Amino acid sequence: MNALTPAVSTGPLPASRKIHTPGILHPQIRVPMREIAVHPTAGEPPVTVYDPSGPYTDPTVETSIENGLARLRHEWVTARGDVEAYDGRHVQPEDNGFATGERLTPEFPIRNRPLRAKAGKAVTQLAYARAGIITPEMEFVAIRENLGRENLGRENLGREMLRGKLERDGEAFGAAIPDFVTAEFVREEVARGRAIIPANINHPESEPMIIGRNFLVKINANIGNSAVTSSMAEEVEKMVWAIRWGADTVMDLSTGRNIHNIREWIVRNAPVPIGTVPLYQALEKVNGIAEDLTWEVYRDTLIEQAEQGVDYFTIHAGVRLHYIPLTVDRVTGIVSRGGSIMAKWCLHHHRESFLYEHFAEICDICRAYDVSFSLGDGLRPGSIADANDAAQFAELETLGELTKIAWAKDCQVMIEGPGHVPMHKIKQNMDKQLAVCGEAPFYTLGPLTTDIAPGYDHITSGIGAAMIGWFGTAMLCYVTPKEHLGLPDRNDVKIGVITYKIAAHAADLAKGHPAAKIRDDALSRARFEFRWEDQFNLSLDPETARSFHDQTLPKEAHKVAHFCSMCGPKFCSMRISHDIRAEAQKEGMAAMAAKYREGGDLYVPTDESGAPLMPQVHAPS
Amino acid sequence: MNALTPAVSTGPLPASRKIHTPGILHPQIRVPMREIAVHPTAGEPPVTVYDPSGPYTDPTVETSIENGLARLRHEWVTARGDVEAYDGRHVQPEDNGFATGERLTPEFPIRNRPLRAKAGKAVTQLAYARAGIITPEMEFVAIRENLGRENLGRENLGREMLRGKLERDGEAFGAAIPDFVTAEFVREEVARGRAIIPANINHPESEPMIIGRNFLVKINANIGNSAVTSSMAEEVEKMVWAIRWGADTVMDLSTGRNIHNIREWIVRNAPVPIGTVPLYQALEKVNGIAEDLTWEVYRDTLIEQAEQGVDYFTIHAGVRLHYIPLTVDRVTGIVSRGGSIMAKWCLHHHRESFLYEHFAEICDICRAYDVSFSLGDGLRPGSIADANDAAQFAELETLGELTKIAWAKDCQVMIEGPGHVPMHKIKQNMDKQLAVCGEAPFYTLGPLTTDIAPGYDHITSGIGAAMIGWFGTAMLCYVTPKEHLGLPDRNDVKIGVITYKIAAHAADLAKGHPAAKIRDDALSRARFEFRWEDQFNLSLDPETARSFHDQTLPKEAHKVAHFCSMCGPKFCSMRISHDIRAEAQKEGMAAMAAKYREGGDLYVPTDESGAPLMPQVHAPS
Repeated sequence: MNALTPAVSTGPLPASRKIHTPGILHPQIRVPMREIAVHPTAGEPPVTVYDPSGPYTDPTVETSIENGLARLRHEWVTARGDVEAYDGRHVQPEDNGFATGERLTPEFPIRNRPLRAKAGKAVTQLAYARAGIITPEMEFVAIRENLGRENLGRENLGREMLRGKLERDGEAFGAAIPDFVTAEFVREEVARGRAIIPANINHPESEPMIIGRNFLVKINANIGNSAVTSSMAEEVEKMVWAIRWGADTVMDLSTGRNIHNIREWIVRNAPVPIGTVPLYQALEKVNGIAEDLTWEVYRDTLIEQAEQGVDYFTIHAGVRLHYIPLTVDRVTGIVSRGGSIMAKWCLHHHRESFLYEHFAEICDICRAYDVSFSLGDGLRPGSIADANDAAQFAELETLGELTKIAWAKDCQVMIEGPGHVPMHKIKQNMDKQLAVCGEAPFYTLGPLTTDIAPGYDHITSGIGAAMIGWFGTAMLCYVTPKEHLGLPDRNDVKIGVITYKIAAHAADLAKGHPAAKIRDDALSRARFEFRWEDQFNLSLDPETARSFHDQTLPKEAHKVAHFCSMCGPKFCSMRISHDIRAEAQKEGMAAMAAKYREGGDLYVPTDESGAPLMPQVHAPS
Repeated sequence: MNALTPAVSTGPLPASRKIHTPGILHPQIRVPMREIAVHPTAGEPPVTVYDPSGPYTDPTVETSIENGLARLRHEWVTARGDVEAYDGRHVQPEDNGFATGERLTPEFPIRNRPLRAKAGKAVTQLAYARAGIITPEMEFVAIRENLGRENLGRENLGREMLRGKLERDGEAFGAAIPDFVTAEFVREEVARGRAIIPANINHPESEPMIIGRNFLVKINANIGNSAVTSSMAEEVEKMVWAIRWGADTVMDLSTGRNIHNIREWIVRNAPVPIGTVPLYQALEKVNGIAEDLTWEVYRDTLIEQAEQGVDYFTIHAGVRLHYIPLTVDRVTGIVSRGGSIMAKWCLHHHRESFLYEHFAEICDICRAYDVSFSLGDGLRPGSIADANDAAQFAELETLGELTKIAWAKDCQVMIEGPGHVPMHKIKQNMDKQLAVCGEAPFYTLGPLTTDIAPGYDHITSGIGAAMIGWFGTAMLCYVTPKEHLGLPDRNDVKIGVITYKIAAHAADLAKGHPAAKIRDDALSRARFEFRWEDQFNLSLDPETARSFHDQTLPKEAHKVAHFCSMCGPKFCSMRISHDIRAEAQKEGMAAMAAKYREGGDLYVPTDESGAPLMPQVHAPS
């Protein structure tokens, strides 16, 4: 391993092992999950959690970024008989910003001929779903979404149900999450456009995942080099790092030189779908001059990226010429990079957007590789003042119109959403999106619920993300603490991912997802039973949890202490609760509690003779 | 200054100065606010923000913690003619846990004789309000809540209104926040128990503030030494540090030795109300053995703390004997320290809680000093699984009953709330509290919206706090990143406070508070106009914002750069937006936008002759 092929973060998370569940319709698939062991004294099964981290956390797999990941989907794709390999587009100097010599990121060492649909074929998951075909990808995500519930065994599920803790008491606002996800359910959801499986046929390294309001809420992490900083090695590591902590997809938002080659390294090593904004690279190809963009340059970029295996494209085709004046009185104008570039182009040429005009042709490209659309919200609000304004909603209507065009071409579609929105205006975004986009999955950035906390916008936006996730957003695009201020480093990426895992999980809980609460309950039982190690291991970030505990109580013995480090033994409510429970058992109080619940009659303690012991209450007057 | 009288954090925040507004009814009052200057190029007035930081951020005041703060309310209190000074209780060795010699925290150097109500008098703000008296405290908070709006001047307010940005478009769920807060409005809200002004007559150093759903949402920060760590100096600095970043009240949750003396240092130096849980000290007095608690020890502790000037007491009087069995089947039992102590006492003695039995006597004490009640939620849920259960809501009903008793005694009351609650169950907490507690202010801890992220519980709870604040909670008790894991340090306190300022402000925005959005808009304009310094200065944490920017673009020149450090100049949407705006001005597009808005007719660009320039749209098929 040399400087060009650096190590990335590998190894399992604490107390975790990778398990694989085979398919039934498609026995060749192996669906990965993470099993977190708990201490034997708990007498509980391990907790199975969703795991987007890929082979990097599997110690039985040796990874090397110069080899890339195993091409597990290649045979699934070719077996369908509707694709052909071809030579593909030649890499051009402008693809890498004319970088040469030392400044040129080396090409990824292995080159496979790209695949594309045979003439007239649609190779999208949507096309198969409509044809009634359950693909391996669909069965894969069905198994994945169940989090191993079907393997929990009757006795364990029964245990949960007896505790009354697996009831479905959420408020799902019209979502319909089934108790168990079947492959047929996945097919139906994809067929009606309510969910997408971003899975470019040229990204066989990816482990299929699904985005839709009737599935677990997903999160996206953005990475990307810029004109200023960062290298291929850093970007690959950022991707691996982001999925280690739970990112379900990664967007490569690189600008500057070497875009093509860096992206190739990322895609070849990514077990999650990769999204891009092709406009960024197209703009680099015309030296950053928006007015010089052409459909031809853009189209060429789409094909370039589709051949590489990009799974979804952000396309700002809703920024129409006549919407631009609606942004003129805004406090913060247009804050989407893609949106502002297209607005500038439209205005300069006084023409309708070439993305809008050529949308059907874009669909034809996406259809040939199964690149999903992420219809960009180029006019999203960049401040509380601009939320839910005419510009934003005009564009959303257009995105709804484009959704129907893409669906007619068998293309998978999700819709991007804001941005900056105060809490009381969040639900309107979701409701309008559902209404005008036919329930195509919503994919939102935050939203940030106030503008006054730069440096903490993972939090201002985590609030909005949790809420809009609850209301029905299918994927949440993370925001890091550096938002508005600088480029996120490795630690910022982690904080952003963990914050958004919190938001997504809080949303799953509130929607009443039947499996979401299992992890909360397991962690809470560990907390109550002073199983500190289990509490750390079951958390989203075991390293941080452990290090915070160490700061106050560093000794190993404290990890088995039967008190809380906050309060010390005398004031530990949980220790006292155990005493209470012990006394209660002596006195048969559980039965009394049940009686109290049933009858509404107050429980009256009695002395040995059975006479009421209720003390005289000094009636407060 | 020696080791016993250490320095605390002082000095103004960046670009900020302390201003004081005098009263009209009470000309002697001087209401502090913080004015944040913006760059002259903005052509905007300074932004006035709420400022609980006291004299520590006022460079014209020299503070020294051994002198304590100026006793500004002393004359207001004595002028009412209904109090008397008396010798007060003697400090007992057990008040400080029998600490002696080196281990004894020194007494605060100055001792004033405590005040109490003359026989038969009620000296509470509630009593005055009911009698139709507008106290200086009431006028103080009225001015404070307006954030200087009345001084903005007609032209500036008009400017905001013209921009259409001061409209009140929130959803307040039944709250009725007036456009301008008058002293009479404050009196009415206090009189009907819908707001409290925690202001012990023995805490004349405090600057009055109000807690109620028709006012700005407030936040509380907890500090306190424990058996394990921390000294007087650390605790005073934590208090000063917490209010510097925006804490509106501070609770001293000390346990262990030296409780009395440390608290005296804190109160004498606190410009914000101080809350305590007297049960903690009472328990120390009986060597930590819950069963040994007595009404007499507890009563003595209440008087001790009331004489010191504690402004509100958490009293867990709702933990009744017959509710305890309801907690036996919980996942996490009883998680309130006070609640578990009382439960243990009740169960051991098989008696009703002495707090419940003696509640009327507790009211008599609070009435004589104007200590506000914070009726504790000893049975709050400690996990998602236990949220909104029978135990929690049974206690809440009792808190409603106790509220009415306290009101009958002219005592001010707020109600504590959970805890751990998934998003879909939060509103029920608020609605039930409003219904059963007669709109007495709600004061909640978070709630945490998931259990799976120890190390990030400021975020899991910040989500819930923002939501419940929106729904009507009047004060939010912060949670730091160390919750469940360890003792918060200085940095944790700051992160907790900033996170909760975000939650409270997001709630104010969503409720449609008429002045909340001024700061968001000012910061967003600064962002759009590349006034980086203003963006930092207007933020909740200027230091962090600036340091994050420095990490990517360290040079001073970058602070005036007309592009965003995230993207570099070519991809800066805001720079492009300015270009668009400039073009728009040339072309009179603002007028076109207005036309578009009015008529619904699409704006059709025309050539010089007036012929439509709308390009041929390749109708996507």
